[in-house]
Amino acid sequence: MKLVSFSENDRVSYGIWSENGVVDVFAASTELGEGHALPMDVRSGIAEGDGFVKRIEEAWAAMDEEALDRHTYDPDAIRLLPPLTSLGKNIMCVGKNYRDHAIEMGAEDAPENIMIFTKAPTTLAASGEELPAHDELTEQLDYEGELAVVIGQGGRGISVEDAMDHVFGYTILNDITARDLQKKHGQFFLGKSLDGTCPMGPYVVTKGEIGDPHDLSITTKVNGEVRQSSNTSNMMFKISDIISILSKGMTLEPGDVIATGTPAGVGKGFNPPKFLKRGDLIEIEVGSVGKLTNRLQS
Amino acid sequence: MKLVSFSENDRVSYGIWSENGVVDVFAASTELGEGHALPMDVRSGIAEGDGFVKRIEEAWAAMDEEALDRHTYDPDAIRLLPPLTSLGKNIMCVGKNYRDHAIEMGAEDAPENIMIFTKAPTTLAASGEELPAHDELTEQLDYEGELAVVIGQGGRGISVEDAMDHVFGYTILNDITARDLQKKHGQFFLGKSLDGTCPMGPYVVTKGEIGDPHDLSITTKVNGEVRQSSNTSNMMFKISDIISILSKGMTLEPGDVIATGTPAGVGKGFNPPKFLKRGDLIEIEVGSVGKLTNRLQS
Repeated sequence: MKLVSFSENDRVSYGIWSENGVVDVFAASTELGEGHALPMDVRSGIAEGDGFVKRIEEAWAAMDEEALDRHTYDPDAIRLLPPLTSLGKNIMCVGKNYRDHAIEMGAEDAPENIMIFTKAPTTLAASGEELPAHDELTEQLDYEGELAVVIGQGGRGISVEDAMDHVFGYTILNDITARDLQKKHGQFFLGKSLDGTCPMGPYVVTKGEIGDPHDLSITTKVNGEVRQSSNTSNMMFKISDIISILSKGMTLEPGDVIATGTPAGVGKGFNPPKFLKRGDLIEIEVGSVGKLTNRLQS
Repeated sequence: MKLVSFSENDRVSYGIWSENGVVDVFAASTELGEGHALPMDVRSGIAEGDGFVKRIEEAWAAMDEEALDRHTYDPDAIRLLPPLTSLGKNIMCVGKNYRDHAIEMGAEDAPENIMIFTKAPTTLAASGEELPAHDELTEQLDYEGELAVVIGQGGRGISVEDAMDHVFGYTILNDITARDLQKKHGQFFLGKSLDGTCPMGPYVVTKGEIGDPHDLSITTKVNGEVRQSSNTSNMMFKISDIISILSKGMTLEPGDVIATGTPAGVGKGFNPPKFLKRGDLIEIEVGSVGKLTNRLQS
């Protein structure tokens, strides 16, 4: 299932990205009578646990032809929102998780121990959203295409063996980075947290639809030119490792978002560098997880 | 005004820390009739803007003797919670903001540019709460006494001149750090985000009660021994600088918490180091902002 959040005439809702369009299952569920209404947003739903996807499926199945017709939108007629419209904490990101990217950034090899930094929730943007250029603050805005994991069941001390049971689904994010600020401020947070520098989406794909998350092509194009082209099989720390290491002493919570790192081919890796400029179109495609598309303001 | 969050028989509430005890103004406000009930928690209140403190004052003033008697608790009869019981994002922390601490940590001088890292909201703990020792994960758990700023009105591009208008109040926090994990993982996040490693409180003092936030003594004692003794006048980046730099390209939001850094005297700064051990009592006192007290589990 592909879960999508959106607004339609300023009304915020969520539903399913289907072949026929975006089905507003949330709105439809409110017509099913008391007790059948779905949680108010995707993150609240994830917090309710395993039943959430089942309830969406039931609400979808309960829609007759008239209801389907009334609640299905052409994707062009709505405004996509980030699939999780709010977060309870920063996005957690694995740094240098593809060896070739670690090396293009100047390291001799991938880090021996996992490196985690965060992005403020105010960085969130939707697929299709025009992104701020921030060129009064940075001359080195750079893209990083990444597979992101959305945590379902939370927990602490999660073993590598159990880790995948804690995954709700997958999405794509662009960990846009101001390289000059990242370097200037020592710790990565500030260079990673300019408003709008974490476009995410277009939807969250529930894990049942993705076979092996470590067998997905990952490609980033800028204005049609392929810049990053790799496969999630090249991650140094696999998703189960990441979840296990993060949760050793820190409780993971439903709806937490973990970005799994970016492969080689970021703008800074080219000679001369190819940083983003106003008007650039960035497309990130990750196997069956979808395609995240954004343009920088012109 | 000293705003305190607490639980009493599993009921969560908030109110005022007064000379006579903790006044449960929130509960009292629900008796004032429709429209007078205060927001459900301190963070929601801060988001409502300037009127929040005024509404608390009005609700307090409206309490007659009987109501005061019924809604005032001995601090020993309630369980303190962190003054902000939930956060919408990670706590933002300034690294090495006191020159003598930067030097004890091995630097030649304080950093030229501000360094910001974050702690997950799951690190929050209350004053008086027993803290996890995490000794299966770290051999180098360390304290860092700090003055923390709670943002009132949010914004982006806040000037140094306007910055103090965006402060709601102040509290104390202990930025407990696993030094070995902080070093091992390169970026600080993991070593700073073990559960329970951000005790905060005991209350938020509204800014009107604090004169100059850069003229406050700051002292940390471990088992009665003074370890840190400084003054907030020694911060390299002042609060107005911090707010201005952070908000340059990142929108600050009501209820954001910014830790302003720790002075010299952390455990790692001693030779041999004085890391925390089970049963240690840590007391951090910051001028008129109060005293934060926690014991590590024994």
